[in-house]
Amino acid sequence: MSSLSCSAGQLASLFGPNTTNAAAAAEYICDQFSVVSDKFTDTSYAVDSTYLLFSAYLVFSMQLGFAMLCAGSVRAKNTMNIMLTNVLDAAAGGIFYYLFGFAFASFLYQWAFAIAAAGITSGSIAERTQFVAYLIYSSFLTGFVYPVVSHWFWSPDGWASAFNTGDLLFGSGVIDFAGSGVVHMVGGFAGLYGALIEGPRIGRFDHRGRAVTLRGHSASLVVLGTFLLCGSYYGQWSAVGRTAVTTTLAGCTAALTTLFGKRLLSGHWNVTDVCNGLLGGFAAITAGCSVVEPWAAIICGFVAALVLIGCNKLAEKVKFDDPLEAAQLHGGCGAWGVIFTALFATEKYVNEVYPGKPGRPYGLFMGGGGKLLAAHIIQILVIIGWVSATMGPLFFILHKLKLLRISEEDELAGMDMTRHGGFALCL
Amino acid sequence: MSSLSCSAGQLASLFGPNTTNAAAAAEYICDQFSVVSDKFTDTSYAVDSTYLLFSAYLVFSMQLGFAMLCAGSVRAKNTMNIMLTNVLDAAAGGIFYYLFGFAFASFLYQWAFAIAAAGITSGSIAERTQFVAYLIYSSFLTGFVYPVVSHWFWSPDGWASAFNTGDLLFGSGVIDFAGSGVVHMVGGFAGLYGALIEGPRIGRFDHRGRAVTLRGHSASLVVLGTFLLCGSYYGQWSAVGRTAVTTTLAGCTAALTTLFGKRLLSGHWNVTDVCNGLLGGFAAITAGCSVVEPWAAIICGFVAALVLIGCNKLAEKVKFDDPLEAAQLHGGCGAWGVIFTALFATEKYVNEVYPGKPGRPYGLFMGGGGKLLAAHIIQILVIIGWVSATMGPLFFILHKLKLLRISEEDELAGMDMTRHGGFALCL
Amino acid sequence: MSSLSCSAGQLASLFGPNTTNAAAAAEYICDQFSVVSDKFTDTSYAVDSTYLLFSAYLVFSMQLGFAMLCAGSVRAKNTMNIMLTNVLDAAAGGIFYYLFGFAFASFLYQWAFAIAAAGITSGSIAERTQFVAYLIYSSFLTGFVYPVVSHWFWSPDGWASAFNTGDLLFGSGVIDFAGSGVVHMVGGFAGLYGALIEGPRIGRFDHRGRAVTLRGHSASLVVLGTFLLCGSYYGQWSAVGRTAVTTTLAGCTAALTTLFGKRLLSGHWNVTDVCNGLLGGFAAITAGCSVVEPWAAIICGFVAALVLIGCNKLAEKVKFDDPLEAAQLHGGCGAWGVIFTALFATEKYVNEVYPGKPGRPYGLFMGGGGKLLAAHIIQILVIIGWVSATMGPLFFILHKLKLLRISEEDELAGMDMTRHGGFALCL
Repeated sequence: MSSLSCSAGQLASLFGPNTTNAAAAAEYICDQFSVVSDKFTDTSYAVDSTYLLFSAYLVFSMQLGFAMLCAGSVRAKNTMNIMLTNVLDAAAGGIFYYLFGFAFASFLYQWAFAIAAAGITSGSIAERTQFVAYLIYSSFLTGFVYPVVSHWFWSPDGWASAFNTGDLLFGSGVIDFAGSGVVHMVGGFAGLYGALIEGPRIGRFDHRGRAVTLRGHSASLVVLGTFLLCGSYYGQWSAVGRTAVTTTLAGCTAALTTLFGKRLLSGHWNVTDVCNGLLGGFAAITAGCSVVEPWAAIICGFVAALVLIGCNKLAEKVKFDDPLEAAQLHGGCGAWGVIFTALFATEKYVNEVYPGKPGRPYGLFMGGGGKLLAAHIIQILVIIGWVSATMGPLFFILHKLKLLRISEEDELAGMDMTRHGGFALCL
Repeated sequence: MSSLSCSAGQLASLFGPNTTNAAAAAEYICDQFSVVSDKFTDTSYAVDSTYLLFSAYLVFSMQLGFAMLCAGSVRAKNTMNIMLTNVLDAAAGGIFYYLFGFAFASFLYQWAFAIAAAGITSGSIAERTQFVAYLIYSSFLTGFVYPVVSHWFWSPDGWASAFNTGDLLFGSGVIDFAGSGVVHMVGGFAGLYGALIEGPRIGRFDHRGRAVTLRGHSASLVVLGTFLLCGSYYGQWSAVGRTAVTTTLAGCTAALTTLFGKRLLSGHWNVTDVCNGLLGGFAAITAGCSVVEPWAAIICGFVAALVLIGCNKLAEKVKFDDPLEAAQLHGGCGAWGVIFTALFATEKYVNEVYPGKPGRPYGLFMGGGGKLLAAHIIQILVIIGWVSATMGPLFFILHKLKLLRISEEDELAGMDMTRHGGFALCL
Repeated sequence: MSSLSCSAGQLASLFGPNTTNAAAAAEYICDQFSVVSDKFTDTSYAVDSTYLLFSAYLVFSMQLGFAMLCAGSVRAKNTMNIMLTNVLDAAAGGIFYYLFGFAFASFLYQWAFAIAAAGITSGSIAERTQFVAYLIYSSFLTGFVYPVVSHWFWSPDGWASAFNTGDLLFGSGVIDFAGSGVVHMVGGFAGLYGALIEGPRIGRFDHRGRAVTLRGHSASLVVLGTFLLCGSYYGQWSAVGRTAVTTTLAGCTAALTTLFGKRLLSGHWNVTDVCNGLLGGFAAITAGCSVVEPWAAIICGFVAALVLIGCNKLAEKVKFDDPLEAAQLHGGCGAWGVIFTALFATEKYVNEVYPGKPGRPYGLFMGGGGKLLAAHIIQILVIIGWVSATMGPLFFILHKLKLLRISEEDELAGMDMTRHGGFALCL
């Protein structure tokens, strides 16, 4: 937008010699515009500050959500342990990101995203991981693995970014509004490697190989954490009016689908399943929330719930144990969200949200051709490849160095007692 | 407000032929105003977005508050059950409201209000209601009963709305700023019917008919929920400076009055009583918070506490059992708030908040005549009538179809074990 | 800033008689400016309202944080008791501050600060204090002790305020951005007197004088409370971009330093220690967060952690018992923060944040001379003196009147059972 630039000299020459006092009149008018311009500067500052304040609050709200969700999802004997990793996540993440990742993008959001990715991973390896392994993977993920992905897909310089000012990948770039791929898949697939290499918790599968539910210790904390996560997500991204609507519909549909789906499969109405469904719907709609129609969001949520249930079934079959279903939820539903966006993004919204490049590809099912889908498949492959090439070896080396998994005694007693000086709840 | 509309042609003709370059001068000046106008559009968008983001967050914060308050207020064995209904409330409410209630008003706020009303009701029927009954009443209330009331009292087309652009009811319409009647009374009276038709929980009254306290399982969750509810209420409505002051004073006065009142009656200093008092004060001041003086707010809170204590005494006498005191608190204190506003609304504030119709009635005790009181009595009667005509039959039909109350075995064992696969807290 | 003041008469006279229609042209232009001026009024109102709404929410979030932190930090048998004091803190504080402290400054923030100071003190005297003593000290602190300090250091009339429009103390005044001295030291030193006069809880030191850890009952609530406190602090004060960075770095550094420091000393990785470290870092950076460089914030946090660990060691040695380490954390780290600011405040930032008085002193280590340090040493002495002269005698009188400490029977049984009708958690 052009800025206010009233030139008294220019205006005076326009008034001409017949105006008694052309110079003074012009100066008078331009002085008024100068006051207006100052007022705009002040107003913008006030608006930006308020927005920043709120965003800063949401970062904490989100991290609190993670901590409470994790705390409630593990057994009582490991509650201190997992909360400590979550607090450290925020603390170490803050410093590491400042030191190493700062150059890539604005501090606050990127900090939030980086620690979100690390938080997702911590869920997958909960209840059986050494503290030192946590410190190492967490620093590596927030300081290196995540910033690179974020740069590729979100920076104006990123080779696959929809904001790239030069040539776009397939003339399109990747539409990943708030990180189905960049955040959820990175965290989820990192967790997949961690949980795979560690193996399941003791007792998760009985001697005949059947899955045994190791119930989290507090459903109240799970609900608390889920709402805080949803609220902070919602608060950050619902600026565009329809984003609030699409996110609501995807999350609600996924929650209800999971509720009834699990009821059919297990015979119980389970509140933690609903929470996971809600989060899965959010993880999936995250990429496309600003570029799809409400009816598409309902499809997104419905399929996300099926993906989550399917991934969980598969995990049980292959004896994969992820205490928070983080790999299934963030990896699986995140990947579905990336595909979904490439299928349902509408021409109108894509051009509205990513302006300046008319004629760009949009969703395959909306008549926009296959180029966006091609870009998004590339995104999925690249993220899986990059995480496999970085986090996979890291967890494997930690495993070989015997720094990854705790001893059997520690695991049976719970880390709170053996490492953290006592249980979290002490009645 | 008039908008910026600088016409270069018009201005040029005013400068006249003697100005060397009248057309160019006029265009120069109007171009500057056009820049100003664009900047205002941008600024408004930024302000509106920030406000919307915050409001979206508050909806979740409020629903989280309900969930935690409910969880803490029921016995441990029913915690999963009530939290599930709360999460579902948000999820199903989101979809139903989108499908059926959307036309009436802006989505976000109305969603928040609709699920608040349903949340209030869920407290009254806690610990003994079938899951299917919950799904049915909740959809009916959020998708039909509440939107109709909201339309009547808040829409510019509503026959009793103070915003009505045509003739106002009694020349006044109903002043219900944020829903003492529209939200609290609807939810509270719906709960009254539910709890009446279900009857008390097993063990709530002993064989000699004396009340037995069935303590909620976690006061920490009650406090958590109460603060979240108050905070989100506060965050949504304290825009007008005095609203923050009146709400604070009414809530605080009611909290302290309840504390000392219950101390006299029971001999204990009880934190959950204080929480209920605080919420009762908030429910009462909700209607009039923007149109009364601070001293009146103190009266409002004081009487609200007495109303709450009185309703609770009455409930014990008639063997009415409401685990969260929701009918007493939201129905009783909400109705008092509607009356209170009709007594204490000041002329100055009424005309400020509802401008454009000078000479409109205000509070009876402030010299404003009885018309506002008449309108408010109508509101109370209409809400009670409408809820009686819709929710009463609904709960009765569910009761007759044996879909309302759980079996005695389920109630004694707790629904978490029999229906939800285990307890919420698992140490 | 000058305001928009377009005078049609003045402008017309400048256009002069040769302009065909000077008066009309001038009026036309000034009318446009008048519209602009109205729009600014509206925009400012919208921005201020949004900011106020958010701030109001944060006050509740902060108080909730206190309540949860306190609840988790005490033994299960005193949970109801301490939460009740926290809720009352907010309720009574709201009314008292309105009645007595209102004149000094804007209501909302000052309410938040006053109840924060009282909340800090309540931690020091937890688990052994009579309810009536709590009511008395809390009213006295929020209604008198705190408002005076706040006036001295923050009001434009305050003798030691950096905002003083007349002569500044040592040509500088005190730079205490958000209350390391005004809030944290006041609350912490009040707590010091309370805890000193009450003496330690029964069982805190064994018969041979060795310290015994009396573990708080819920680490989950401690983490919940800590995040809520940090989030609301962060949300209120991170307006200046660097404030978010300095606060993050100080808090994170302090958290990590405490974690590793306590690991060396105790052999455990303790999540509540990390929470206290985080809060200590925040308490310390509070004074200088807007006027120091990021690297200095890291030093601030590192030293704050050492101060906290040192104060805790000292407390054990002299048999001082503060269940929440509030005196050590808020008193000790707060005082360090006051000193820190006087050492590391940069010339550039000081002049930016406190404009209009060029050449004012800044941090000693940054080449700004010793005047700021002198002012800050005065602040520390004055706060300690004032709190000693007011809260010391108050607690002593309560002690002599036998209104301070509960009976040995009550303490052993826990106040929840003897005074509050039952335990907070009821499984």
